[in-house]
Order: sequence, then C-alpha cells, then structure tokens
Amino acid sequence: SANQPLKQAVILSAQYGINVFVLGLVLMLAGTFHRAGVTQEHILAYLSTLMAIQLAWMLWYFSGRHGKRVLLTEKDEHAGPRWLRGGLTLFATLSLVLDMFKIGYYVGYSSCLTAVKGVYPAIHAVHTLSQVYFLWFHAKDIIQAFQMIGRFGMIHSVFTNLLLWVNSIIAESKHQLNDHKKRLAGHGFANLTMEKAGPNCSCTIHVCAAFYKASYYMYPFSIEYHVLASAMLYIMWKNVGRKLEHRSPQKLVFKTRPNILPGPVLGAAVFATTIGILVVYSLQAGHSKDHRLSAVTMFYLYSMIVLGLMSAASTTGLVIYRIDKRSMDYSKNPTRKLDGQLLASTACASWLLSWCSVLAAVSAQSRPHSTWLSLPLSTLAIVEKSVQNMFIVESLHRKQDDGEEEAGRLKGTSDRPGTSPPRCGIVNKTLEGVERQLCCAAAPPQSPEDRSSSVCSEQLPSPRAAGSFPPASFRQTGNLHKTRVILKNIAAFLFLCNISFWILPAFGAWPQFDNGLEENVYGFEAWILIVNLAMPFAIFYRMHASSALFEVFCAI
Amino acid sequence: SANQPLKQAVILSAQYGINVFVLGLVLMLAGTFHRAGVTQEHILAYLSTLMAIQLAWMLWYFSGRHGKRVLLTEKDEHAGPRWLRGGLTLFATLSLVLDMFKIGYYVGYSSCLTAVKGVYPAIHAVHTLSQVYFLWFHAKDIIQAFQMIGRFGMIHSVFTNLLLWVNSIIAESKHQLNDHKKRLAGHGFANLTMEKAGPNCSCTIHVCAAFYKASYYMYPFSIEYHVLASAMLYIMWKNVGRKLEHRSPQKLVFKTRPNILPGPVLGAAVFATTIGILVVYSLQAGHSKDHRLSAVTMFYLYSMIVLGLMSAASTTGLVIYRIDKRSMDYSKNPTRKLDGQLLASTACASWLLSWCSVLAAVSAQSRPHSTWLSLPLSTLAIVEKSVQNMFIVESLHRKQDDGEEEAGRLKGTSDRPGTSPPRCGIVNKTLEGVERQLCCAAAPPQSPEDRSSSVCSEQLPSPRAAGSFPPASFRQTGNLHKTRVILKNIAAFLFLCNISFWILPAFGAWPQFDNGLEENVYGFEAWILIVNLAMPFAIFYRMHASSALFEVFCAI
Repeated sequence: SANQPLKQAVILSAQYGINVFVLGLVLMLAGTFHRAGVTQEHILAYLSTLMAIQLAWMLWYFSGRHGKRVLLTEKDEHAGPRWLRGGLTLFATLSLVLDMFKIGYYVGYSSCLTAVKGVYPAIHAVHTLSQVYFLWFHAKDIIQAFQMIGRFGMIHSVFTNLLLWVNSIIAESKHQLNDHKKRLAGHGFANLTMEKAGPNCSCTIHVCAAFYKASYYMYPFSIEYHVLASAMLYIMWKNVGRKLEHRSPQKLVFKTRPNILPGPVLGAAVFATTIGILVVYSLQAGHSKDHRLSAVTMFYLYSMIVLGLMSAASTTGLVIYRIDKRSMDYSKNPTRKLDGQLLASTACASWLLSWCSVLAAVSAQSRPHSTWLSLPLSTLAIVEKSVQNMFIVESLHRKQDDGEEEAGRLKGTSDRPGTSPPRCGIVNKTLEGVERQLCCAAAPPQSPEDRSSSVCSEQLPSPRAAGSFPPASFRQTGNLHKTRVILKNIAAFLFLCNISFWILPAFGAWPQFDNGLEENVYGFEAWILIVNLAMPFAIFYRMHASSALFEVFCAI
Repeated sequence: SANQPLKQAVILSAQYGINVFVLGLVLMLAGTFHRAGVTQEHILAYLSTLMAIQLAWMLWYFSGRHGKRVLLTEKDEHAGPRWLRGGLTLFATLSLVLDMFKIGYYVGYSSCLTAVKGVYPAIHAVHTLSQVYFLWFHAKDIIQAFQMIGRFGMIHSVFTNLLLWVNSIIAESKHQLNDHKKRLAGHGFANLTMEKAGPNCSCTIHVCAAFYKASYYMYPFSIEYHVLASAMLYIMWKNVGRKLEHRSPQKLVFKTRPNILPGPVLGAAVFATTIGILVVYSLQAGHSKDHRLSAVTMFYLYSMIVLGLMSAASTTGLVIYRIDKRSMDYSKNPTRKLDGQLLASTACASWLLSWCSVLAAVSAQSRPHSTWLSLPLSTLAIVEKSVQNMFIVESLHRKQDDGEEEAGRLKGTSDRPGTSPPRCGIVNKTLEGVERQLCCAAAPPQSPEDRSSSVCSEQLPSPRAAGSFPPASFRQTGNLHKTRVILKNIAAFLFLCNISFWILPAFGAWPQFDNGLEENVYGFEAWILIVNLAMPFAIFYRMHASSALFEVFCAI
C-alpha cells in the first residue's frame, strides 16, 4: 500500500512535465512567428527559470547523496554506459564553447542587448557543467528514498532538456532557412523577406561577427547533447523505485583486433569521402543554378553508393543471424527498450521525407537534371533504415553463448599458455595474480565509486576476453569466431557510415532545399515547413543509430 | 531459437505498417492542398486497395479458423470486452449509414463522378461488416500458428483503419472550416476562397443535397469507429504469439442499484443541458457578431461549471483512494497499458489548445467580451484532464479485495438466504443448481465459442456479485460498501460528462473559432492549422475517457 502514492507520482509527474513542455512549445512557436507579443527574451527567461529550478534540485540531490539522505541500494548497470557518458561529455564541452561564443557576443553588443541575452548563456554553462557531473556519477542510480521529489526533479530535467533541444533546433532551422533564402536571393528571387541579423549598435570587441558565424558550427553538438541528456534522465526517471532482478550484467569492452580491418577501413574511407563531399557541396551550392544541380547530382550518386553498401552490410548481418541461431534476451531493460523505440520513431521522420520525395519524383511536371536519381535514392533510404533497424534491434537482444565460449577459452589457455600476451581481461589460471595487477594498472580510472569496488575481478571473467586470443588456438570455436569477426566488421562499417550521414545534414548539406524538385511540387512554404519539422529527427536518427551500433560493436 | 524470426516479424511488420501509413499521409496532405497532382480519386483508390488487401487477409483468417488451421490455445480475456465491442458495433452501424448516403450521392451524380467515388463506399461497407464480424468473434484471439502472416495482416489492418480515420478527420475538418468561412463571409469578410461544393452536373434523384448534408452528422461516428477498431486490432497485434500467465480474469458486469442515483442523475442533467446548449450555440453562432459572442459566453460559463464539478468529482475519488488503500495490480495487460498511454497522449492535444488560449488571453491587445472567461476556463480544462487521468489510471490498477468481500458475501447469504433475489451471478450454495439455470437463461448469448464453454460457471464466482445484495446485510463491510457506492456515482457522473464534452465539439460547437480571441493573436491561418491538428485528438480523448470510465464503473 506504500506503493500507491508513488505510482500516482508517475502519472502526476509525467503530466507536470508534459505541461511544462507544451507551454514552452507554445511560447517558442509564438516567438518564432512573432505572434502574441512573445519575444526571444520571454523564451530565454522561461528557459532560464526552468534551468534554475533544475539546478536547485540537483543541488538538493548532491547534498542528499553526500549526506546519505538519499538511500541507494542498487544501480542499473544497463543505464548510462561509459561510452555514452563519454559522448555526452564531448558534446557538452562543445556546447560550452557555444555558450562562450554567446557570452562574447553579448559582451560585444552589451550596450543594446537586454540582460537576459547574457544571463541565459551563463546559466546554461553552469547548468551544463552540473548536469554532466550529475549524469557522469549518478546515471545508474536507482532512487529509493524521497521518490516523489526524485520523480518530479527527474521529469523536470527531462523536459527542460527537451525544450533546450527544441530551442537549438529552431535557431538552427532559422539559420539554414536564411542561408537558403540568401542563395535564392543571389539567383534573382529578391522578393523574399530576410530575418534581420544583428542588433542595432556596433560591436565593441571586433570579433562579434566571428562569434556569430562560429556559433553555428557548434549548434549541431548542442542539439545532440540535449537529446542525449534527456534520454539518460528519462531512463533515470523510469528507474525511480524500481526493483531489480539480480543478474550479473555484461560489461561491454571496446576491443579491436587485426581481423577487424575491412569494416573500419571501408568505413573510414566513406567518412573521409564524406568530409570531401561536404566541403565541395557547400562551396558549389552557393554558386549558380548549374553548379548547384551538379553538386546535388554528386551528392545523390555518392549517397546511393553508400546507402547500397549499408543495406548490403545490414542484410548480411541479418542472414548471419538466421544461420547462427542464439537464444534471445527479453529481460526487462528500460535502456534497450528506449533505444528501439527511438530508432523506430525517429526513422518515421526520414521516411516521411523520403515518401514526399518519391511522390514528387513521380508526379513532377518539369524535371530538373537530378530527378531521375531522386526516386531510387529515396527508395534506397527507406529500405536501408528498415534493414538497419532490424539489425540493431536483433543485435541488442542476442545473448552471448557463454558456455561454448568458456570451453574454447580454457582450452586455448591450457594448450599454449605462452602465446597469450598479458592483456587486460585475459584469464590465465597460473598467471592470474600478475595479470590482475597489469589489468588494474591498464584499466582507465572510472568514477570514484567504481574504482573502490572490484573493477578488475569483475572484468576478468568476461566472455569477451576470448576474442583477444590468436585465432590459431580456436580449433573448436573457429566458426563462431569467424562469424563474430564478420559481425564486428559490419557494425564498425555501419557505425562510421551513420556518423557520416549525421555530419552531412548537421553541417548544412540539405539537398532537399537545393534540388528544386520538391519545392516546385509542394510549394516553397509547405516544403520548408515539412523539412524543418522532419529534419531534426532524421539527423537525430543517425546519431542515435551510431551510438546503438557502437554498443552492438562492443557487445558482439 | 524458433522465436527469432517471429521477433524479427514484430519490427519488420511494424516498419511495413508505418510506411504504408506515411505514404497514405503524404498522399492525403498533397491531395488536401492540391499539390503534386494528387486528386481525391488517387487517395480513394489507395484506401480501397488497402481495404481489399485487409479483406483478403480476413478471409484467409476466417477460413483458417474454421478449418482449424490457425491453432488457438488461449484467449486474452482483457482484450475486447463486450461493452467495447458493443460500442464498436453501434458506431459501425452509423458508419454504414454514412456509406449508404455516399452511395446514394454517387448514384445521383453518377454521370459526372468517377467510378472510384462509388466503388469506395461500397468497399468500405463490405470492409466495415467483415471487420465488425472479425472483431466481435476474434478480438480475444491469441494467434500461435502462422504468426508471420498474422502479424502482417494485423498491422496492415491497424494502419488501414488509422488512414481511414485520418481521411474522415480531413473531410470533417474541411467541412468545419467551410462552415466557419461561410459565417465570416456573412459578416463581410468576402475575400476568403471557398471550396467548391458539388460536382458539375445536376442530381438525378432529388435527394443529393439531403444526402450531402446528412452525411456530416455521421462523420463523428465514423471517426470514432475507426479509432476503436485500430485500437482493438493493435491489441491483437501485441498479443500475437504471447504466452499468458494463467490467472482467472475478472468478468466485468454492468450493474446499477438504487443507491447509485445522484451521479447518474446529475450526469443526465448535464447531458440534457449539453444538448440544449449545442442547439442554441449552433443557431446563435450563425448570426451576427454579438449573437456569436453571447453564444460563446454562454458556452464558456456552462463549461466552467461542468469542468469544476468534474474536477471536484475526480479529486473526491482520489481522496477516497488515499483513505481506502488497496494493493495494486501491475500484471502485464496490453489493453490497460494502451488505455493509459492513449489518455495521456491525446490529452496533450487539449493541453496544447488550452495553453495557446492562456497565452492569447494574457497577451491579447483588443479584448472581446469573453476574454476574461477564457483564462480561468483554460486553466480549469488543464487541471480537469490531469486529475481525471489520475483517477482513471488508478481505478484501472486497483485490485478487488477478494478475501474481505468473500467473507461479507458468504455471511450475507447464510444470514438471510431468502432476501437475495435469484439474479445472474449470485452464488447461493443451497440454490446453486437452480440459479445456474436461471443465470444461463438470462445471460445474453455471446459468440458460439463462448457459449459452448462454461460461461455461467465462470461468471458465478465473480466477486462483484456481492454488490447486488441489499445493503442491510452488509454489517461488517458497510464502510467498504459506502465507499464503492460513492465511487460508482463518481464514475457514472464523469462518464456522462465526458460523453457531453464529446458531443459538443464532435457536432460542431468549436468556440475556438468563434470567440475571436486566438484568431486575432495568432492569425487566421496559423490558428486554423493548430485547431485542425489538435481538435481530432481532443475529441478522441473525451470518447476514450468515457469508455475507460465505463470500465471503471463496472470494475468498482
């Protein structure tokens, strides 16, 4: 019966969070379209208030944790893995750089900007620092005491981050739209109204323009940072008051071997080409119409090749799964469930764009040069995402065949004890003491809590350790080993390709605006609305697929 | 390992369904805004094809069921309760009437309408009949054999119904918008472009105009029918291949008693007043601006009173739950989970509208007469939905105190065996044989399968049966009894109020268009877009809350 008010808190807190979010959304939409007298200042004030509340809550949480007021009995080992927290920290750092740019910009124009334009980035910087600290050390916490306050604080944080995400997206979309309008204006469409850039006074520190320009290269990172943070906070919210079934979790260890070469190499080649394509595209798209269309054609041909390779790789992975059957792990795991749902739901946005392109390509009256490529490309994009989602979700659910591996591993060590180099994670019964020392020295320091517990003894019985033996010692498990090498190559290749397809739209290559096809068919305004609504989710899909593929790579 | 391709089928079929839906959505949006050369005929052809595929699949399913090809081992007793199937049948019947109107309209104008305009309602009628038959007899099925085809057929049906729902919503929104424009045109705003109504030839059967007008009174029912059907089909899709934990399910029986009077009576009063308000509002809103604004003021005052009463009722229910503590039932139940999620997600749409109104009321420059009511009304609407959701979700999760009741029931029967009338569902040890006869005779015939199994023996041990004893026999459980009576009254009152608030917008009382507040603040086009996107979900919320409250009424 003590459970009742807590279950109520789930609904109550969720409804509170949704309403905070909806109000923010209404404010932002009104501000964007200059309605209802809402200005940028109102929005920033609202966001700053929300961040201040979250800061107060986190302070309460920290003080409770250190004063042992918030009792912790368990940790969810699936939540907030180290690589995810690492990614979060990276993005947060670049987000801090963005805050510095904004503060610098405010200092330059301080005579004619309202105070909130300076207060907002300062609060945001403090908020970012505290939140990264919070997530780095507490992402696995399962709150058992003061659940009510825990739930409300957590859901408040989730929706605050989502609102900050929406705010960044709107800023980024406005920027993309202005770029697009500038290009159109260069080609003679002069009747478009431009957003006025910059305040009414002159800059006092001479680098305002540089700050302004540079900040747009940081927005994509800020966007991803807020989404990652809200996903991790959502998992913490789901975990409040949860009772865990006790199972020893699999530690995921990042490990490469000489066999895993073709995938990463091919992926790196794709990645390098992508950077080249992005630079060429950005330069070409600003020129005349012919230049722009040839850039689009290049972009389409390149995308088709890569998407084709990705589809082939995912399909190969699925075929291997059909041959190499394993039992599946369907135990409760909020992190994995959210992963799958996010993949499917954000893919919807790209599917919407793709289907719009298909319809436009089929029905277009006047066909630009690149139209004949648009139809197969869109179809390929739809297929690729479907196959890739299936590959990722099945990979995350597969169980490791621990028994089979254990046998192979022990056989290998007893056959030739000398050939195994003393690497971290390898168990050699006779050398165990020495190796544990080495392992402890080599293991990167985690959080203070983690270090005090037995990191090494946990890592030692890892089944994945077998992977670092030379393949010659795997006579019995050779087939298993080969399968795993192929799968690891596939995951690495897909990972790098997804990163590439994240970089392209995140840094401004939006051929949807430049190909001149959909814009003619649906009309300028309608198409801009559709793209600006769907694109952020399509971009997030690529980032999220990359992080999931990284996990797959470690888990295989 | 046999489980693997099936788990794949979940993702594969879901992705297939989403793409079918997205393509349909793109077609409909293009058709609505007359883009990409998509006409109404294309959309109807696409929908007819989808319905034909579903019909073929259902035919395969029927033939398999009767040829015992589709093996059934279990049934999900939570899925498709009888009252839900009853509601579905009612809405389907009115949806068939709509099809008849459309066919009649086609016959009248057959010389100048394309064939697809006649084929579509005919296929839709066949589709409706088959689907109601399918859901009536198979909604509880848990498919174990041919799961792959089952999954694909099911998800195809889900998204076909969702597309039919979207199609009806667009037709309804266009109609509402045209009505609104006509009114505005009557007040001198002549520069609005009207949709041309009717084809280019004259009607041959003299009742075309009547068919056309009458059909718009049927759309709300058709809309609800498709949503209900897709929710039931979604539960069937979730249930494919499921393994049930064996628990005897609670049969819900609709039962009223003399004590349960204030709630239904007050609810009926609200309902009757609503009909009156709707008629007056519809007549007044078409008149001059002053008439319209006085109609809006009346509407707002009435809404505030009812919403206040509803909030009070829900809060009372929650307070009772805090006092009368029970253990909660958190067992796996896809139907209940979907109920909760639908309530929360569709409430978001109304919250969006409410927050827009709040912002508009705060920031409006010129205030019409009704503005001062808009702010408290919107706030009340937000609060009411939050409290009501919490009441419904907690009610659905509460366990019946079987042990306590059993004691009271047996005591009651042994005290005065003569006072208990021989009603269906009442257990009297000495009269058991006689009563079972009566019960079997009184129970309405369900499906052939159900009748052959032991309906009566299942119904007999129902704990709810205790409710039908005269209260005098409840000396020990008097307090429990009183609590239940209050809760039943609350549920009944809320049920009737939600039905009322469904009727108002479903049949054309949209004060959001008539109060002249938000339209001024956000602009005509933007506000119409927001209302037309959010309103269908807000309307569905009321219908769904009613059905959930009906279940709560039976379960208490």
